[in-house]
Amino acid sequence: MATLSARALAGIPEIRPGDDLAEAIATAAGPGELKAGMVVAIAHTVVSKAEGALVDLATIEPGPRALELGRGQGRDPRVVQVALEQSAEILRAERGVLISRTRHGFVCANAGVDSSNAAGRDQVLVLPADPDASARSLRARLAELSGLARAQAPAVMITDSFGRAWRHGQTDVAIGLAGLAPLDDWRGRTDAHGLRLHATWLAIADAAAGAADLVRAKDSAEPVVLIEGLERFVGAEDGPGALALLRPAAEDLFS
Amino acid sequence: MATLSARALAGIPEIRPGDDLAEAIATAAGPGELKAGMVVAIAHTVVSKAEGALVDLATIEPGPRALELGRGQGRDPRVVQVALEQSAEILRAERGVLISRTRHGFVCANAGVDSSNAAGRDQVLVLPADPDASARSLRARLAELSGLARAQAPAVMITDSFGRAWRHGQTDVAIGLAGLAPLDDWRGRTDAHGLRLHATWLAIADAAAGAADLVRAKDSAEPVVLIEGLERFVGAEDGPGALALLRPAAEDLFS
Repeated sequence: MATLSARALAGIPEIRPGDDLAEAIATAAGPGELKAGMVVAIAHTVVSKAEGALVDLATIEPGPRALELGRGQGRDPRVVQVALEQSAEILRAERGVLISRTRHGFVCANAGVDSSNAAGRDQVLVLPADPDASARSLRARLAELSGLARAQAPAVMITDSFGRAWRHGQTDVAIGLAGLAPLDDWRGRTDAHGLRLHATWLAIADAAAGAADLVRAKDSAEPVVLIEGLERFVGAEDGPGALALLRPAAEDLFS
Repeated sequence: MATLSARALAGIPEIRPGDDLAEAIATAAGPGELKAGMVVAIAHTVVSKAEGALVDLATIEPGPRALELGRGQGRDPRVVQVALEQSAEILRAERGVLISRTRHGFVCANAGVDSSNAAGRDQVLVLPADPDASARSLRARLAELSGLARAQAPAVMITDSFGRAWRHGQTDVAIGLAGLAPLDDWRGRTDAHGLRLHATWLAIADAAAGAADLVRAKDSAEPVVLIEGLERFVGAEDGPGALALLRPAAEDLFS
């Protein structure tokens, strides 16, 4: 079995709306560094910034629910209003926490609205409108800039930090994917004893997102991590994307 | 920032009740391979086997609830009975899934009872009785066998694969820890823009468990993975253990 390795890419400049993020990554990596079979893990914050997925809080008029939740949770009601607008469904709003299902289908706190990573104190970042499309577009552009054939392009994974229902802390998960398999399905296959592996369905991309997060400090400007050793999960096709990781609401036991 | 690397350790023999698992690991690693600052990630299955945490299904008399759930879910009622006995609380029992809080406090499917990894078809594996104590004991023994001072011992992490409420597939998480920090707390600290990182509390150990799982195929006999690059989270003290990762039932919004 190959060794897994992950290293943060130094030298990504501050990203602003309209910037060519793929070019910033290719330049920081340098010639020949982006390879077939590699996974380029990118924190969603820089993708959101490049795409202009920023909301100016001065333009936000909090509604009655945002005012009430903001008051109850000691939070800026305008930020709560943005989170409500990014949500398809509110699962919990208690004890200072707002857990919702986003328009994309992700279940997370505050619909992924992020005030700490925005460029200014009067702005918040929201998730990319279609993170799988963002990943596909970044992958195509990285292939072009690296002079690699399309089928040899490194995979692209866009990540965010999500909390978990029953465990403290956050881990990074994949919210956008191009070229990396989201899941590895061993259900129905047999183990080394010939016994059926009935419940083995591995969330490869989420594990890889967690690995990427381990090599960057949260206060550093290191949004991009290069992962090697996952070649067997990287394909020429962009694949089903991170949406394939979402349990449909109809199968949800915990909302 | 250091590079993270993870590689599976080849040559671990089949583990049986009473075996010295630490010795099997030290022998497979070879002299000088286990180092200070390293994390030795061990699938709980071999820890359970070494500790004899196996249940002979012939000794199990399923009660009425196990019979009913087994019938409804098309599962062996004796395996369901073992899962019920390993549970402190049943959270959901529907759609072929039994989600419970184990006696330790872990929320997972089937209370961690595993039929696929047991040595025989008439046995199931259960989680170690006290995985943090198992990790501490393995760490102490690994230090001894490697000739390292106690404070220089590699950290030990015992892992299991857990499903997630709203996402498909499983990821590995830490269920026992000695020497590795479970969480890295950035709450209240500031990011590169001087803005407060209000929701940044990283589940280091769970991310590391996921990374370890990426380098072993599920059907291979590779229960042990060596991780380097997490030296800053490895301490001389064994630390709070994996129980520190559990959200107390009183803070649980989803049971």
